[in-house]
Amino acid sequence: MEIYSDEYFMKMAFKEAEYALQREEIPVGAVIVAKNQIIARGHNLTEQLNDFTAHAEMQAFTAASDFLGGKYLDKCTLFVTLEPCLMCAGAAFNTRIGRIVFGAYDERRGYTQFDHEHLTNKRILHPKTEVIGGVLEDACLQLLQEFFQTKRN
Amino acid sequence: MEIYSDEYFMKMAFKEAEYALQREEIPVGAVIVAKNQIIARGHNLTEQLNDFTAHAEMQAFTAASDFLGGKYLDKCTLFVTLEPCLMCAGAAFNTRIGRIVFGAYDERRGYTQFDHEHLTNKRILHPKTEVIGGVLEDACLQLLQEFFQTKRN
Repeated sequence: MEIYSDEYFMKMAFKEAEYALQREEIPVGAVIVAKNQIIARGHNLTEQLNDFTAHAEMQAFTAASDFLGGKYLDKCTLFVTLEPCLMCAGAAFNTRIGRIVFGAYDERRGYTQFDHEHLTNKRILHPKTEVIGGVLEDACLQLLQEFFQTKRN
Repeated sequence: MEIYSDEYFMKMAFKEAEYALQREEIPVGAVIVAKNQIIARGHNLTEQLNDFTAHAEMQAFTAASDFLGGKYLDKCTLFVTLEPCLMCAGAAFNTRIGRIVFGAYDERRGYTQFDHEHLTNKRILHPKTEVIGGVLEDACLQLLQEFFQTKRN
């Protein structure tokens, strides 16, 4: 795996997802990268914090803005193991993040399920935000599936 | 104004918006009500906290879940002076909030601009969430307009 590649940083987000799993949270992890440096990390903490706003991405956005001392993240890339939900995509719009790289697709509540720019001329994400999905998709999806399997048993 | 009416609680959200204005924030305020009791308050703090996730609603969701000791807010009503953006609507979905009452409409980034259930069979909010818009609309809108007017001058 090449250093500083999308796969490399997704692996770091995956590590965060594993921390979530250890805490019996739905295993989603995120890192935010600027100039090849990880400036923020987050993993899903909705159960621990008893708070639905505590998705991995939301924590990473807050931490990244804090690190940079500015609200805009247009020079940053968010790596997250699961396609962002509408809350996190809405937050991403607000921050004008430069790139989003996600792992597994979420056909139920992923934000792309609600993106109908061709019909409405309204974009969920900022026009300048580049998006790449499916990076380390299998590993990210498998971690989620194992979690839900264990929950059911 | 009748006590415990939608206008009554919107007035409380409006007070929060005024606090935001005093801090030179875009004046949006929110309260969350359960059994006619205000259990959470929030006003926009994106500038103060240097954090785009610090919308009035988001803070109120976090505070309400904390107060109740449970993540779900299905027995609660969110009163907010401006139509929620996608981030806040996405959070509202996650919390399954019972009702949303908002003041001014946001034709640019309000979540209803992205709601195309008739086309996609996917709802932004939870099916059980009731929504009422336009409560104390003029006052809520005027506060926002005055803020942006002052900013321009």
